[in-house]
Amino acid sequence: MENFTFYSPTFFAFGKNTECQAGEYVKRFGGTKVLIHFGGNSARKSGLLDRVEASLKKEEIPYVSLGGVKPNPRSGLVYEGIELCKKEKVDFILAVGGGSTIDSAKAIAAGTVYDGDFWDFYSGKQIEKALPVGTVLTIAAAGSEGSGDSVITKEEGMLKRGTGGDALRPKFSILNPALTQTLPPFQSAAGITDIIAHLYERYLTNTKEVEVTDRLIEALLLTMKHEGPRVIENPNNYDARANIMWAGMMAHNNSCGVGRSQDWNSHEIEHELSALYDCAHGAGLAVTMPAVFKYVMNHNVMRFAQVAVRVWGCQMDFEHPEVTALEGINALQNYLVSIGMPKNFAELGAKEEDIPHLVKVLCHGNGRPGYLSGFVTLNEEDCTKIYKMMI
Amino acid sequence: MENFTFYSPTFFAFGKNTECQAGEYVKRFGGTKVLIHFGGNSARKSGLLDRVEASLKKEEIPYVSLGGVKPNPRSGLVYEGIELCKKEKVDFILAVGGGSTIDSAKAIAAGTVYDGDFWDFYSGKQIEKALPVGTVLTIAAAGSEGSGDSVITKEEGMLKRGTGGDALRPKFSILNPALTQTLPPFQSAAGITDIIAHLYERYLTNTKEVEVTDRLIEALLLTMKHEGPRVIENPNNYDARANIMWAGMMAHNNSCGVGRSQDWNSHEIEHELSALYDCAHGAGLAVTMPAVFKYVMNHNVMRFAQVAVRVWGCQMDFEHPEVTALEGINALQNYLVSIGMPKNFAELGAKEEDIPHLVKVLCHGNGRPGYLSGFVTLNEEDCTKIYKMMI
Repeated sequence: MENFTFYSPTFFAFGKNTECQAGEYVKRFGGTKVLIHFGGNSARKSGLLDRVEASLKKEEIPYVSLGGVKPNPRSGLVYEGIELCKKEKVDFILAVGGGSTIDSAKAIAAGTVYDGDFWDFYSGKQIEKALPVGTVLTIAAAGSEGSGDSVITKEEGMLKRGTGGDALRPKFSILNPALTQTLPPFQSAAGITDIIAHLYERYLTNTKEVEVTDRLIEALLLTMKHEGPRVIENPNNYDARANIMWAGMMAHNNSCGVGRSQDWNSHEIEHELSALYDCAHGAGLAVTMPAVFKYVMNHNVMRFAQVAVRVWGCQMDFEHPEVTALEGINALQNYLVSIGMPKNFAELGAKEEDIPHLVKVLCHGNGRPGYLSGFVTLNEEDCTKIYKMMI
Repeated sequence: MENFTFYSPTFFAFGKNTECQAGEYVKRFGGTKVLIHFGGNSARKSGLLDRVEASLKKEEIPYVSLGGVKPNPRSGLVYEGIELCKKEKVDFILAVGGGSTIDSAKAIAAGTVYDGDFWDFYSGKQIEKALPVGTVLTIAAAGSEGSGDSVITKEEGMLKRGTGGDALRPKFSILNPALTQTLPPFQSAAGITDIIAHLYERYLTNTKEVEVTDRLIEALLLTMKHEGPRVIENPNNYDARANIMWAGMMAHNNSCGVGRSQDWNSHEIEHELSALYDCAHGAGLAVTMPAVFKYVMNHNVMRFAQVAVRVWGCQMDFEHPEVTALEGINALQNYLVSIGMPKNFAELGAKEEDIPHLVKVLCHGNGRPGYLSGFVTLNEEDCTKIYKMMI
């Protein structure tokens, strides 16, 4: 096991009606003037924003609002939010929405207390401070509610890039599984896929002897395997929603990543797809993961065999572990297809002729060195082959 | 799943040589005058205290010291610590040791900023504030390094009682698995048993549909099952020590307890044993757990069958699940015996003739209502039977 630090100081309030405590938690964590940041009109129509606003009014905390966050959140709205926060002297940002809204809120939080261009943080600069952020989560997926990460897409060149730091970790996050019951099945499935990806990317390691982290990841994968189909079958299954929502947080606050190397290449390879085609991140991952895993599995076939046996219930082929490893990857893909996810470029709306462009941006965009590091180093030729496996 | 809150704001620094960063972390978390609280002379002899003191000197942070914490820490030393902290204007307490030392440090932290008798907090009073506490952990066991809990024994009447609150959660905890390599096998095994008990007590619930928490507990139990014997066989196995140390924290920061009822009766029933006989808490639990579990298993036999199958590898007897459930409890006991733990009163140094006294203090001491609540309510007769099962 490698040395590590772990810090997840977010206060979580989980369960029914917890959004009505938003004002109380803003107060507890020192907010006196709030920006409520949200996505589309559904948060207004459903009454969620009304309940959150009522809870702020109850605590006599003034607020301004900025809606309009889109999936794969854009830099344009971030600049707008920063300007608004400076003008209105906002000292607390409350994100009401999914990962995109929370990521956008974090970008605004960092940009408001920074003199330069917030995009600097998405181009390698360390984040030292940010306004405090709280969240009311409406989709189990990105894990941004418990992480210090944020991913933003810059309109100019459609560059999708991430950043991270403890200053971005939410002060509190409110998780009410009932809020996710109105999600369309496709969005629920895309969220489930994102959670599974966060677990798999932490599982792909060459570090030895990290049994505790392996077992934790397997525990959450087993939870997703069990609960995913139950949510797709019955969107109103509160308990299945609840188990997925908490697993989604645990999958990405790095509980499951400590003590070893991690590999985020499936995410990186997918980011180019959702940046170019504006497809759901989870849907992109459903197509990306099996291709990446099949491409790299022979570099450590026993890890892939382990997850196949422990999570997917495959019988170990002791003479041919690569058979078991592949069986596990196929089981993952079959699961993803069974909950309604796409399995290839065509179903995703991606095009074979774009592959050279995708590879170029992936390997060279935003200062990249021409390859991806990770569990296995992937150069342009590797990435081309991987994209072609998705056709 | 039930509504819950979860808050684990401790910063963890994990790995080799991390104790040399103690001063840096005290500074980061605002300490300017430190009480170093520790147990016996081993911390001095091993050079650990020297390294911690050197790290404080490097940051120019003055300190005073108070050693002498014993297993099952006593109220007498807590009073002494409180007096010292007030006199020396200490604003940060650094516990260097195991769970007993950390628990004692937490009691001093709460008592120093309280006008009344600190024992009030161990008799039901809520803790609102405390001095900040940091820890350098030397044994994987109690989980106090990541919890808001503290257990102290009052000399008068040898009452062993616990308290808890977010104010007691350490600001930081330093976990260097190498520091645990010098522990005698019996102490290592007692620590392993305590960790397993923290997991089992959270597993004993009547709340339905908390798959994610079940899976997390099973993950950590599987880790303990795998790593425990490796540590006993080779005390210098750093990786096995590391997996156990992190599992021990995760087992008790309540990651594994969210969303449902818990049952702490094995701990309560054991506390009377370690209070009266001053035996190792883990050793007491090794004797207590199988008895309690056999006594209550028929109230929810499928839970016991589930852990038997998923953790202990038992084959499910679908016609007689109680057979599988019992097989799992026996597998747990065999495991504990295999790592060197006692299996009955005689091996523990407990006496049958003390049972009436044990039951009386257990059920009526310190304001208890004459019974224990939990997974199953246990009255005096039940507790008598359970103690007799341990003979």
